[in-house]
Amino acid sequence: MSKRVSDFLLASKNQVDHRLADLAAEQTTRAAVLGETLDAITQAYTYVLTNGGKRIRPTLVYAAARAVGHSGHGADLDHVACALEIIHTYSLIHDDLPAMDDDDLRRGRPSCHKAFNEATAILAGDALQAQAFELLADASDFHPQKRVALIKALAKAAGLQGMVGGQAMDIAATNTDLSLQQLQSMHAYKTGAVIRAALTMGGIAADASADRLDALDAYGSHIGLAFQVVDDILDVKGETAALGKTQGKDSEANKPTYVSLMGLSGAEQESQRLLQAAIDALWEFGADADPLRGLAHYIVSRDR
Amino acid sequence: MSKRVSDFLLASKNQVDHRLADLAAEQTTRAAVLGETLDAITQAYTYVLTNGGKRIRPTLVYAAARAVGHSGHGADLDHVACALEIIHTYSLIHDDLPAMDDDDLRRGRPSCHKAFNEATAILAGDALQAQAFELLADASDFHPQKRVALIKALAKAAGLQGMVGGQAMDIAATNTDLSLQQLQSMHAYKTGAVIRAALTMGGIAADASADRLDALDAYGSHIGLAFQVVDDILDVKGETAALGKTQGKDSEANKPTYVSLMGLSGAEQESQRLLQAAIDALWEFGADADPLRGLAHYIVSRDR
Repeated sequence: MSKRVSDFLLASKNQVDHRLADLAAEQTTRAAVLGETLDAITQAYTYVLTNGGKRIRPTLVYAAARAVGHSGHGADLDHVACALEIIHTYSLIHDDLPAMDDDDLRRGRPSCHKAFNEATAILAGDALQAQAFELLADASDFHPQKRVALIKALAKAAGLQGMVGGQAMDIAATNTDLSLQQLQSMHAYKTGAVIRAALTMGGIAADASADRLDALDAYGSHIGLAFQVVDDILDVKGETAALGKTQGKDSEANKPTYVSLMGLSGAEQESQRLLQAAIDALWEFGADADPLRGLAHYIVSRDR
Repeated sequence: MSKRVSDFLLASKNQVDHRLADLAAEQTTRAAVLGETLDAITQAYTYVLTNGGKRIRPTLVYAAARAVGHSGHGADLDHVACALEIIHTYSLIHDDLPAMDDDDLRRGRPSCHKAFNEATAILAGDALQAQAFELLADASDFHPQKRVALIKALAKAAGLQGMVGGQAMDIAATNTDLSLQQLQSMHAYKTGAVIRAALTMGGIAADASADRLDALDAYGSHIGLAFQVVDDILDVKGETAALGKTQGKDSEANKPTYVSLMGLSGAEQESQRLLQAAIDALWEFGADADPLRGLAHYIVSRDR
């Protein structure tokens, strides 16, 4: 990866890290007016928003906007970038709950319901989802028509026809046999929908043409699946410490994975195939799409 | 209550009941394409949306629009009315969870996590919240600027500065002593924020002036509190069967209530005072506000 590309990706992560920390601080200040009773939930809020995540979805927003001619790091994109990371964060909190995936570790730290309690985790997730939509409604750099398009894209990707539907499929799949096609469909909903939304929302924010939005969406569906294939590979190969979550969790829960269905080398080949398909989807884009290309390589070669 | 007013309220409930049933059927049809894995969540979805609730929040939307000169039952208001009932429905599902209020009964039937399971209940609530915002983004009868204003109002009322914050305060208050002022503040957030949003959103949808919006908001804050005072009275006086939820639940959980702080007759006087304040807030409105006036009387005199 060229220095220019790695600088872009690092700048994206830093920018959204700062904005998320600002948002958590704002919420804490506002809630403090109401007295101590909101201390637990605002602490949980800060805890989950400042946890050193990879920030892939917001980075995709900045990179997609860059790919269609936007400078890439304008403050106008921050609400979009934060809204996507906030939706992702809420989904992790709820997925980790005992009634769901029951995971005690997230990004190397106790998951939200372990650090606080279940009620606080449920409520923090609920508040985050509302805030994501409030941020987009408040994105005053954009014409209301654009804001409505962004909200629609995120709501669809986050709901029953997207992320939540995928999580429901995932839970229903525990202890069952899925075909490769069913596994792909589940992941296309569970993680793919929001990743694709990050790409198209970055494109919409930067006034991409319909053709360019289609290309960004195609790139998104390939890297979304690639991301999951690599997750399954790391779940088998990786170490808990590097991964920051409990390793071997999926195979332990008897959940079907790419590795269990295709074998380790089959899954590794599949991740390379998807990487190539993602790069191919960008063939009409020039050097402005290099951050997206770099991200695709990063997603497939990452070790956590 | 005059027949004209009771007809208006009944027509509001029927209209939103039909639209919610349509939405549940649409989701079921769309999810069926994805196979049986989404059967549980779409059944839960239909279960909670077609449960014969009182539909007070959507009725407030139609009545507020009527009060500022809208016909009151135009189809343009349906997305707004449904979005509010959907937010309310999701909050009930999550509030009933074992980690929250742990309530097995809701509106006379097993609560969502009892009828299905906890994971399905968490996910159904999450999907409903996303759908509420999608409905507003899709309210194509309204200019995008109006849609953005509606989304902003709902997101603020539903989030940490509103309903979720209030629920967090409520949970923090279990086994503690609250002053009357703290109790009012908790309810103003927990239920008051969304009730006020129903009023102002009905007003925004019908192009109310700033003065009229303020009056609707004042009416909303009074009936929101009145609603809660009456809930506390019914929790002591009512029978489980009529109430449709477990009676005596709050005092059992050692939660402060209006009755525990003011006594039964003090709470009854307070509900009458709030009723009068709500009616007074509408003094500049003509006969078009009679459904709102009727609703205020209904809220204070209801037995469930």
